[in-house]
Amino acid sequence: MTTDTDARDELIDLAADFYDQFAGGEIPELELPTRTKSNIEYDTESGVWTYGDRTSTRSANSVRGARKLLKAAYTIEFLANQLDEGRSSTLRELYYLSESWDNDEAQFKSQDESNDLVEDLEIVTGVTREDFHMRPEESGATLMGPLEIREQTRRGEREIHCQEDVGEGGYQIPNNPDMIEFLDDDIDFALAVETGGMRDRLVENGFDEAYDCLVIHLKGQPARATRRITKRVHDELDVPIAVFADGDPWSYRIYGSVAYGSIKSAHLSKYLATPEAQFVGIQPEDIVEYDLPADPLSDSDVNALESELDDPRFQTDYWEEQIELQLDIGKKSEQQSLASRGLDFVTDTYLPERLGAMGVI
Amino acid sequence: MTTDTDARDELIDLAADFYDQFAGGEIPELELPTRTKSNIEYDTESGVWTYGDRTSTRSANSVRGARKLLKAAYTIEFLANQLDEGRSSTLRELYYLSESWDNDEAQFKSQDESNDLVEDLEIVTGVTREDFHMRPEESGATLMGPLEIREQTRRGEREIHCQEDVGEGGYQIPNNPDMIEFLDDDIDFALAVETGGMRDRLVENGFDEAYDCLVIHLKGQPARATRRITKRVHDELDVPIAVFADGDPWSYRIYGSVAYGSIKSAHLSKYLATPEAQFVGIQPEDIVEYDLPADPLSDSDVNALESELDDPRFQTDYWEEQIELQLDIGKKSEQQSLASRGLDFVTDTYLPERLGAMGVI
Repeated sequence: MTTDTDARDELIDLAADFYDQFAGGEIPELELPTRTKSNIEYDTESGVWTYGDRTSTRSANSVRGARKLLKAAYTIEFLANQLDEGRSSTLRELYYLSESWDNDEAQFKSQDESNDLVEDLEIVTGVTREDFHMRPEESGATLMGPLEIREQTRRGEREIHCQEDVGEGGYQIPNNPDMIEFLDDDIDFALAVETGGMRDRLVENGFDEAYDCLVIHLKGQPARATRRITKRVHDELDVPIAVFADGDPWSYRIYGSVAYGSIKSAHLSKYLATPEAQFVGIQPEDIVEYDLPADPLSDSDVNALESELDDPRFQTDYWEEQIELQLDIGKKSEQQSLASRGLDFVTDTYLPERLGAMGVI
Repeated sequence: MTTDTDARDELIDLAADFYDQFAGGEIPELELPTRTKSNIEYDTESGVWTYGDRTSTRSANSVRGARKLLKAAYTIEFLANQLDEGRSSTLRELYYLSESWDNDEAQFKSQDESNDLVEDLEIVTGVTREDFHMRPEESGATLMGPLEIREQTRRGEREIHCQEDVGEGGYQIPNNPDMIEFLDDDIDFALAVETGGMRDRLVENGFDEAYDCLVIHLKGQPARATRRITKRVHDELDVPIAVFADGDPWSYRIYGSVAYGSIKSAHLSKYLATPEAQFVGIQPEDIVEYDLPADPLSDSDVNALESELDDPRFQTDYWEEQIELQLDIGKKSEQQSLASRGLDFVTDTYLPERLGAMGVI
């Protein structure tokens, strides 16, 4: 985590660069990695998406370019003040707030523009937007398991045990999960679960207690905060991460975003991705082996599976075998289809078998 | 709240009715209010949607009808056992679970069928599905404010103060909010907020502390649990409820579902709707008065506004004036557009002015 002072310094340095370029009689410019698909590569060594070597230059040598740097300067000032005052804001607020700026040329025309600029600033400074105190709109995960945390809130510190001090809904992680510190834990592994129905099933069945498991609710495609907390649990508590999702191509993408990062946030892979995360299921193999209730694959499912076969993240023997099997059987199954074997089947049989086979338990 | 024993008794009574009809040589049948749009009316006295007088009869005098009653009998048995064992399940699990039933004819063909049956059982028994221990898939709201609750969890009781014992994410209410009891509070009113960005703004600015306000996050169209907790806060703590949403027709529907209930859950209006809830804004009037950044209305916005003019829930002088003004100016604004006046404008100016004018503060 970057401290507020460090984050502020990085921003001010950037503004100082513009100043120095001006003072030296140069046209100010900003160099960034090219953020097109062709310059984003899957780094097989680190196992995550990263930028390639190509860079682009934002220069004030055109009206359009000059306007971009003007907006950057205003945004830097806003963010630096925000950090100074210990405040925070959302990306959407930044977009609207620009209307109050004294220079009309600095105002954003759309939220895409302000979002992109904040991503540029993340890349150039190496500071995440959470550390600029930019809050996401979507709220992150809930946690349930034998973990005691300390959260730094603006109302003081809170020490919370994620089983004993929370209701059945669990602990709601804050927008910036780096505001929490892990105090103590008794976790053997973490299970990141796609759907709320399954998360509740695991909690009701006491799976977190029986297996010393931290249950992280992904809520579908996980928010940045959720991916960040998952990575921190892995790295700091040194426990395996297992992703438990539906058995369809969209859920494999959820796994992919937890494990390998996404093209959109390639600059954050080190911060957000957990390449060691393993996929529990539902595997296409499970649909066959456990004879699960299934739906036929739709055309868009088939297309998504085929594009996964071309996705470098899924080019492993394991995924090729599973995806080809799925195309072959033409079926997909949801997590909750395990209920066709009874409400305890998932916690008494399926997860122990799968996690055992994976070497997690 | 219905106790588990009462809920179970209601279900068993229903099964006993079938039995008695059989024993008396009659063809078993079940009488339900007709659930078509024409039999759902807005009750101006109670201010919520209710069923009209028409009823339909599900009779076993056809194969189709007999199969429906068979499925009802199996579902009743499942729910009664679930209540006996203090367990719970989701609607989706019920659908899949039916595959394990020994009679193929009793298995559900689609989740719509099982969902509808559970709604039928709610209507006939007068017990909500939460009291049958059927959990929703979507998780409910978070709360932040001077309220101390006791939650009955399956791991024992938890006493939680919704400011002092939670992180910045707030208290995550459980799937069945009737498992919580209000112990103590210092609440003058509750503000039900549509977006996460605005909920976080209010919490960051300490609005809940400054105004003794309970901030309820609606998360868009609110889940049943969220509407239920809102109603309970109103009724049991005797405080006004104000709904703070975007200024567009979809957000007026969010307000409508909190205040008047929805057609789909007309049988639950007494349990879920809070007719006394007031709309704070963003009002079309506010877009003009505060000169808020706005987007043009799309065709579907205009259609939705026009259909609201025909909706009995919105047939008041206030709503007709606001909706006609909006059609006239052709604009909509989001909650977060208030940030164009600075990050504190919403808590220092807008909300105090509006809540003052409404008599809430």
